[in-house]
Amino acid sequence: MKPDSNLPSARDKLLFTPGPLTTSLSVKQAMLHDAGSWHFEFNALVASVRKRLLKLAGLSHEAGWEVVPLQGSGTFGVEAVFQSCVPHNGKVVVLANGAYGERIAQMLKHARIDHTVLRTAEDTPSDAAALEACLVADKAVTHVASVHCETTTGILNPIEKLGAVTKRHGRVFVVDAMSSFGGMPIDFEQCGIDFLISSSNKCVEGVPGFSFVFARRALLLASEGWARSLSLDLLGQLKGFEKNGQFRYTPPTHVILAFDQALRELEEEGGIPARSERYKQNHQALMTGMIRLGFRSYLPSPVQSHIITSFLYPDAKFDFTDFYHRVADKGFVLYPGKISQCDTFRIGNIGRLTESEMKQVVYAIGEAVAEMGIKMESASAAKAQ
Amino acid sequence: MKPDSNLPSARDKLLFTPGPLTTSLSVKQAMLHDAGSWHFEFNALVASVRKRLLKLAGLSHEAGWEVVPLQGSGTFGVEAVFQSCVPHNGKVVVLANGAYGERIAQMLKHARIDHTVLRTAEDTPSDAAALEACLVADKAVTHVASVHCETTTGILNPIEKLGAVTKRHGRVFVVDAMSSFGGMPIDFEQCGIDFLISSSNKCVEGVPGFSFVFARRALLLASEGWARSLSLDLLGQLKGFEKNGQFRYTPPTHVILAFDQALRELEEEGGIPARSERYKQNHQALMTGMIRLGFRSYLPSPVQSHIITSFLYPDAKFDFTDFYHRVADKGFVLYPGKISQCDTFRIGNIGRLTESEMKQVVYAIGEAVAEMGIKMESASAAKAQ
Repeated sequence: MKPDSNLPSARDKLLFTPGPLTTSLSVKQAMLHDAGSWHFEFNALVASVRKRLLKLAGLSHEAGWEVVPLQGSGTFGVEAVFQSCVPHNGKVVVLANGAYGERIAQMLKHARIDHTVLRTAEDTPSDAAALEACLVADKAVTHVASVHCETTTGILNPIEKLGAVTKRHGRVFVVDAMSSFGGMPIDFEQCGIDFLISSSNKCVEGVPGFSFVFARRALLLASEGWARSLSLDLLGQLKGFEKNGQFRYTPPTHVILAFDQALRELEEEGGIPARSERYKQNHQALMTGMIRLGFRSYLPSPVQSHIITSFLYPDAKFDFTDFYHRVADKGFVLYPGKISQCDTFRIGNIGRLTESEMKQVVYAIGEAVAEMGIKMESASAAKAQ
Repeated sequence: MKPDSNLPSARDKLLFTPGPLTTSLSVKQAMLHDAGSWHFEFNALVASVRKRLLKLAGLSHEAGWEVVPLQGSGTFGVEAVFQSCVPHNGKVVVLANGAYGERIAQMLKHARIDHTVLRTAEDTPSDAAALEACLVADKAVTHVASVHCETTTGILNPIEKLGAVTKRHGRVFVVDAMSSFGGMPIDFEQCGIDFLISSSNKCVEGVPGFSFVFARRALLLASEGWARSLSLDLLGQLKGFEKNGQFRYTPPTHVILAFDQALRELEEEGGIPARSERYKQNHQALMTGMIRLGFRSYLPSPVQSHIITSFLYPDAKFDFTDFYHRVADKGFVLYPGKISQCDTFRIGNIGRLTESEMKQVVYAIGEAVAEMGIKMESASAAKAQ
């Protein structure tokens, strides 16, 4: 008898995405409990999570920092900064080289906040000199916004240079570090950061359901009365925690229990330096394998992050949907491309993944292209490129 | 040797709260998997959840209805309706008799939307005649907002009467049914409802992490360009689902897996009629037991919902914190009061709770008051009240 090829795998598919990502079983098991959102035990856990997040970022209350978790996805956290911490006569310069920079511009448009977008090509980091010229020329600008790792491509923007320019001209610096925080060291003071946003389901390796905003306390306090939304009112959210230790509105209790465990596992792994090292190794294993197969990455290597990588379609007739399903059938979930200029797909290497699993996904991709009869460029030709 | 009284119980405490509430183990176990938010299997599950939610509400696409899930707590869903579906020259009448009605007024204030609040006392249902007078007098009013079960007290507002008045005067009717949807039948057409909001962690018995908005499609489509927030843009969210079956921004994947299971269990229980019946029995068992102990409920019985009940402190010196901790130590989490006019605490009877567990919490409360040496009014005196 022929074996049943439709028999489902005993294991969940691994996610090679920018998040939601593959998390450890123990992180998910932490959700097997119902916690009362008003109950003192849960409040103590929230306080502990906030304290450990600050420490993880190398920040402290004494140095004037707060961390404010907010319900919703990472986008909600980014929007909350603009909806509540930009004054009504404020103006934001947005540095954009991908979908997440453009999304900030969309947010500002919805909130009717004056803004300018400084664009660079999707394969080109944001330009500190152009930012400086803009800040010199336009005195109305109050805030500068940058996306650290632009997940559209996987490009890293030079937040240290951008922050230095922003601070030299006395503006507020907002960094969307959604997919980078926890996965690489970030020196907040060195980068002149005033607000930094990330979320539960990225490099801390929790599950999705809330974002968190690191903010200078003085800037939060100065925003009294500015919030254009109640749900997205960051100062209001902070005041809630300070009043009774609680989220103002129902928190995603299970997601927070999972995040507490994820933070513990990050601490046990050796903190951000160790995790950054694992992701670098993952990225290296991925690149080695994909180049050997004949794939080429979209970005030049100096600006490529070790978070997520965009790969060019191997030829013009490449059927991504077919490819995606074939790789998924083998147990690996890839991510489509988001680049406007050319056809790509993406492979993330964050989450509970190791070098061994990066090799497995490369093996599955090799099988898929062979099944599809795709003629790959030779590895040496690809390497020479 | 004395037994160790600090030995933790093998079981989680039961939550007698308005949510997050006690959910079944199978609902929580559904979260033991990581799902890709772009993956076709997850998209199919989201489509199924949306379809079954509409059916549960007795609505259909054919009759012009949509359901739009939105990341964040229930408050985010309520605010999204106002932030995105009230025009810039719109005006809202808010019917308020508790904290959740007042919260809608706060939202409108943040969003700089013109509004009037029609208040009744916390023990008095909203007044349809007063609403009618207001709508006749103020032609600028475009929307009417009501909280169905005001969780502050547990009072039920007469949405059928309020909706009839609203429709007679051609206004849009928005119902916050956070703690009632799923726990009692609601006839949308009979009540003239245009928008109704609830959340994942209430009577459907899922875990917290998103809200969902039932809306008339025509009203969503008419709101093009009105949204004051990107994250809270309901029409944008609907368009996202219609474009590729996905949430626009990262959904709480695990919470949605749990909700899918919660919907299945609600269907298996016999739908809303059966669940409503269980909650009524829970409420009845609670009232019988609490009255026997000598407690009195805050609300007169005709306006009391079977969702949550406010009980008066038994005497002026009642130490709620001590009481709360004693009952918690026995394995039951109660809820503090929120009424401005007098001292109360609350007991919810929604979630995966049965009559037997309502009797258990009453027994534990009886033990706690005995330990505290509180002299209760006799049951017969309380009954006569």
